Amino acid sequence: MRRTSFADERCSIARALDLIGEWWTLLIVREAFLGCQRFGEFESRLGIAPNVLSQRLNRLVEGGVLQVAATSQSGKALAYRLTDKGRDLHPVIVALAQWGDRHAAAPDGPPIQLVERDTGVPIAPMAARSAKTDRPLRPRDVAVVAGPGATDSDLARLADLRAQEAAQGRPPPASPAGSAAAHRTPSRKPTRHP
Amino acid sequence: MRRTSFADERCSIARALDLIGEWWTLLIVREAFLGCQRFGEFESRLGIAPNVLSQRLNRLVEGGVLQVAATSQSGKALAYRLTDKGRDLHPVIVALAQWGDRHAAAPDGPPIQLVERDTGVPIAPMAARSAKTDRPLRPRDVAVVAGPGATDSDLARLADLRAQEAAQGRPPPASPAGSAAAHRTPSRKPTRHP
Repeated sequence: MRRTSFADERCSIARALDLIGEWWTLLIVREAFLGCQRFGEFESRLGIAPNVLSQRLNRLVEGGVLQVAATSQSGKALAYRLTDKGRDLHPVIVALAQWGDRHAAAPDGPPIQLVERDTGVPIAPMAARSAKTDRPLRPRDVAVVAGPGATDSDLARLADLRAQEAAQGRPPPASPAGSAAAHRTPSRKPTRHP
Repeated sequence: MRRTSFADERCSIARALDLIGEWWTLLIVREAFLGCQRFGEFESRLGIAPNVLSQRLNRLVEGGVLQVAATSQSGKALAYRLTDKGRDLHPVIVALAQWGDRHAAAPDGPPIQLVERDTGVPIAPMAARSAKTDRPLRPRDVAVVAGPGATDSDLARLADLRAQEAAQGRPPPASPAGSAAAHRTPSRKPTRHP
C-alpha cells in the first residue's frame, strides 16, 4: 500500500488505530472498563466467536493494553485486566460514547450513561482544552504544527494547510513565547514546544 | 451474531463504531480536519485504493458525517466537507492522537502536533470532566448507571457491576440531588438525570 505525507506508520492516530481501531477491539476495551476480566465474560457479553475473541485479546496483550494473570493456584483461570496504557484509553472510549449518545443513540436512548461517581451527575461533554487557560477549544481553535518527527514532506503539507487556512481567513498558529516563529519555519528539526 | 446485555445495537459506543470504527474511515475524518476536500486529495494523502475510498466516503455521507457539494458550475468537481456531526468527532480524533502520541509514537516522535491556535502551546491532555466542578476525572471517578434505554438485562448487569465494585472497595455512584436513589433502583424507566 502506498504511503504519503504524514505517513501512516508515523502518524499517532494511524498507529493508535492500527492497535485498537478494529471494531471488536474497542468493544473489548469497553467491557474491560465495565469490569469484565475472564474469557467467558467477554464471550457472553459481546456475543463474539471464541476464535475471534482469542485473537483480539492476544493482540491487546501483545500491544500492552491488557495484561493477563492467573487467578487460581492451578493457573487455569485467567483474568485480563487493563494496564496503565489500557486505562489511558478512557478519554477515547468516553469521547466515542458521548458522540454516539449525541449522534447515533438508539431510539429508546442509550442503555447506560456515564456519571461522576461522587455526585451522580452526568459528566461534562469532552472537548480539547487550552493548556494555558483550561478553556474548551473549538476545532478551529486547534492548529496542527510540525512535530519532532516531521519530514520535509510533512512541512510542505503544513505550508499548504497554512495557505488554505489563510484563504479562509484563519490566522496562523501563534509561536509559543520564546520559540522564535518555530511553527512557521520549515526546518528538519523544529524546536520542540514546551 | 448473538447480542447480549448492553446489546450492541443499542450501545452508543457500538453504534458510533459501526459508523466510524473502520480504520480508513477515521483516517478520512482526520484528513477532513486537515483540510482535505476532494477525492483526489484524500486518495493521494491516504494512499487508499479508489474503490475503497469511494465506498468509505459514501458511507460517511450517508451517515451524515460528511456532506458533498459541487465546487464548479459543471458540477464535476466535488468537495467533501465535515458536517456539524462530523466536526463533533473532534474530541474522538484528538483523544486518539494523544493516546497514540503517548503510547504508540514513531521512534522519531509524531510528525505533527496539536496546539492552541492563539498561543501555539500544545493543547492539554484530554480527560473526562466533572460537569459540576470541571475538574478532570480518573476512570475510577466515572461510574456507569442506567440510561433511558436500559432494559432489565442491563439493570441486572449494572447490579453485578455494583457488587464487583463494592468488593473492590469502590463506593456506589451518588444519586444526584433530588432523584431519590434512582441509580440503585432497578426500574424499567429510570429517572432521567438532569
